[in-house]
Amino acid sequence: MKDFIVSIDLSGERFKVIYRLKGIEKEARAKAEDICVEQTIEFPAELVKGGDIRDHILGRIESFQPMGPNCWEAAISYAVEITGFELTQLVNVMFGNFSLKPGVRVERMELPGSLLKHFKGPRLGVPGVRDLLGVPGRPLFCTALKPMGLSGKELAELAYRFARGGVDMIKDDHGLADQPFAPFKERVQRCAEAVERANRETGKKCLYVPNLSAPADQILEKSLFAKKNGAGALMVAPGLVGLDTLRMLADDDRIALPIISHPAFQGTFSANPDNGVSHYAIFGQLPRLAGADASIFPNYGGRFSFSIEDCQSIARAAAVPMHHIKPMFSAPGGGMSLERIPEMIKIYGRDVIFLIGGALHKLGTDLVENCRRYMEAVNR
Amino acid sequence: MKDFIVSIDLSGERFKVIYRLKGIEKEARAKAEDICVEQTIEFPAELVKGGDIRDHILGRIESFQPMGPNCWEAAISYAVEITGFELTQLVNVMFGNFSLKPGVRVERMELPGSLLKHFKGPRLGVPGVRDLLGVPGRPLFCTALKPMGLSGKELAELAYRFARGGVDMIKDDHGLADQPFAPFKERVQRCAEAVERANRETGKKCLYVPNLSAPADQILEKSLFAKKNGAGALMVAPGLVGLDTLRMLADDDRIALPIISHPAFQGTFSANPDNGVSHYAIFGQLPRLAGADASIFPNYGGRFSFSIEDCQSIARAAAVPMHHIKPMFSAPGGGMSLERIPEMIKIYGRDVIFLIGGALHKLGTDLVENCRRYMEAVNR
Repeated sequence: MKDFIVSIDLSGERFKVIYRLKGIEKEARAKAEDICVEQTIEFPAELVKGGDIRDHILGRIESFQPMGPNCWEAAISYAVEITGFELTQLVNVMFGNFSLKPGVRVERMELPGSLLKHFKGPRLGVPGVRDLLGVPGRPLFCTALKPMGLSGKELAELAYRFARGGVDMIKDDHGLADQPFAPFKERVQRCAEAVERANRETGKKCLYVPNLSAPADQILEKSLFAKKNGAGALMVAPGLVGLDTLRMLADDDRIALPIISHPAFQGTFSANPDNGVSHYAIFGQLPRLAGADASIFPNYGGRFSFSIEDCQSIARAAAVPMHHIKPMFSAPGGGMSLERIPEMIKIYGRDVIFLIGGALHKLGTDLVENCRRYMEAVNR
Repeated sequence: MKDFIVSIDLSGERFKVIYRLKGIEKEARAKAEDICVEQTIEFPAELVKGGDIRDHILGRIESFQPMGPNCWEAAISYAVEITGFELTQLVNVMFGNFSLKPGVRVERMELPGSLLKHFKGPRLGVPGVRDLLGVPGRPLFCTALKPMGLSGKELAELAYRFARGGVDMIKDDHGLADQPFAPFKERVQRCAEAVERANRETGKKCLYVPNLSAPADQILEKSLFAKKNGAGALMVAPGLVGLDTLRMLADDDRIALPIISHPAFQGTFSANPDNGVSHYAIFGQLPRLAGADASIFPNYGGRFSFSIEDCQSIARAAAVPMHHIKPMFSAPGGGMSLERIPEMIKIYGRDVIFLIGGALHKLGTDLVENCRRYMEAVNR
């Protein structure tokens, strides 16, 4: 052990993380070499004299190429075993310590079947959610219960009108938690009941999607409560509760509901091209790997700042072949209007959930009618 | 409900979030107004005609002042009730959606007693950890078990030597998870036993600190296992497992161990002054509020990029009076050497845990002796 020449039983299987590096070639190369150490042994490389740690545990630069002026892309591979086949440690190897260093961004991961087989991914994915709703080909339409401050009873009344208007999903606004003015359990019961009542009247299937960004010691129990009381899917913000908590809920056979990922508190990751994690990875690849059936993100051209290319990259990550991992829906929100729907279908394709919140109220005071008009637009 | 003129029973107590805004005055003011809406009702403000939602649920600009060229600071207050008195939702109100918009950074929060009373904060804090160790006034000294790739047996042998050298704490490297070459349970048992054996021989109290960045459905059980098998504290990375998971472990009376927060995957938050969350808040205020007894962060002048001012701001957040919430230790790591210890005591004060990993091995091949030399330096 003195020289760390130890023998480790490894499969030889490796996964890759693609990093974007800033700087002149020499600096960028030094950063890539630093990543190999910092993300694995975090130890003076010169003290590791040989053996399996240096040969297999240390990260390995598989490629290094220019991407533009002072911009490089390095593919670094790691032994699959160092993830322990856990999502928490996979994210840690990907960017744990290096998030603390400047000039490096994660673009994406390339994960072999030997690693992916430890992840279930979306339980339903695009085909499963379509089957559940009985909607084969068109985009889906989701609206939100808001504003914060309404009581559970008032939110349920809104939910009823939306469901009567024929929308596919009605989600809690992501700011609805367990506040005294609309406590979680009462709200979930009332809203699920209201949507169920409307479904009986319309003959359609609309899902009520409560927000589950609850405390760590309550989130499983609250999810089971929601399931038992008629929730049709769950919304979870991995930035607030942890990405692996989303995975836990997605994997739990007692819940067995679609999971919708919300981007709250994750925007900083992709805010700057010189540090962080790409839109593709943070809003696409990672929630899909964790088991999200849909990933919400800010739509281009709305009140947020994502570009068309950013949004398309997320849609790509949602759909790209990934061994047994099912595709998920893209769910752009913000800045939606009736007029923009045809253009958005061109950008996102049809495996998309359009999220329309405040804008739905702007169309007029008859919410049922507003929903019908949007449903007609997505049905075209 | 039609006009959202509803009556809500609120205490009138508010908390403040201090945001740094970029742009000319008009833009920055518009951003501040946007924050008031986006972080609360997320709804067209013109549709909220009056009543308690507009008057109390909506965020309120309490102050707005210039901080430099094209740089402004706004204090925005929110009703304490909209947090539901939960950490997940407090973080969501602080910066959930606005993390997705450019040009805004969270500087800090100002939390009244009416909100803080719902949080326990550090179980032991600085005085409690000092009592536990029997070390009243000097800086503490912690080293790490590495490199990744060693077996549990080999790591335990290292732990034994470090403990014989008299260090205060020995933590797992943050890359040690539950890998096949050093499975969690075996590693924890072996390392705790080795440290306990050394403690019997030296008569000192050294704590073994396993890394608990485990899957969401295993972390509580693994924490209890660690406690039962002699762990002296737990290390948790909120960026990997969720900040509220750290709180859950800190609050659990069955665990009742010091909690050490690790910054893995959180660096992006403070990487850019134009977006994200300040060093003060992300590595100081938030982990302390969640219950961390110590917060690890990259030391200035080392292999990371934090400035002296960044590091001092974290130390300030660790110690500043905060109602009943106890102070926590600052735990800078990286770039440490024997020679720098006096300077670092000047910068951080004595309520500090010096983290020394790889550098300890560079001092010579006799690890016990290396530890003794560092302990002499902090004892001076």
